[in-house]
Amino acid sequence: MTHKRIKPAFKFWFQIGDNYVFGEGAYELLEQIREKKSISAAAKVTGMSYRYAWALIKEAEEHLGEPLVKAQKGGKRGGKTEITEAGLSLLGKYKRLKELMAEVCKKELPKN
Amino acid sequence: MTHKRIKPAFKFWFQIGDNYVFGEGAYELLEQIREKKSISAAAKVTGMSYRYAWALIKEAEEHLGEPLVKAQKGGKRGGKTEITEAGLSLLGKYKRLKELMAEVCKKELPKN
Repeated sequence: MTHKRIKPAFKFWFQIGDNYVFGEGAYELLEQIREKKSISAAAKVTGMSYRYAWALIKEAEEHLGEPLVKAQKGGKRGGKTEITEAGLSLLGKYKRLKELMAEVCKKELPKN
Repeated sequence: MTHKRIKPAFKFWFQIGDNYVFGEGAYELLEQIREKKSISAAAKVTGMSYRYAWALIKEAEEHLGEPLVKAQKGGKRGGKTEITEAGLSLLGKYKRLKELMAEVCKKELPKN
């Protein structure tokens, strides 16, 4: 039995019906927007183009039927951006579930 | 807040280092081999060609450094096939971890 080096891995996302709605990319982007209050700055940090980042958010919002971000002041591109309550709730759920899954992966694999 | 219809989904696999070693396809195939004691019958049920099923097993065995199946009697193709102890152990771990992850997905998403 040489399973020692084997480690469990997982990918995690939210879906509605069979539609992918929100995964790791959107999570990291929104986390950065929350922190930096700027879509362009968040896109830069996560290695996305502004256009891609914007599309990612808009697509998730369309599936969810509600906004995830809102302008704090100024225009779309220049002004500050905030995460909505719905966005914060989604971020929190994603993070919590991902942590719980990571715990399962760490704890439950018997070493033999 | 209209997150009610959102459901978490996940994909789960084993890896060694950064190498994918064993995932859903291999799991389903091995489960069927365990039941039917035949690679061809298991391949048929899981919708794989015999060649693909055989390659999937061989690749996993190479990564793991030990056999997952063994001939019970007769030749490779005609005779019965058994899962090795290592294979059974891997199947068990995969199943258990997958169930625990599914539990996380079911229980921990607050409904709001």
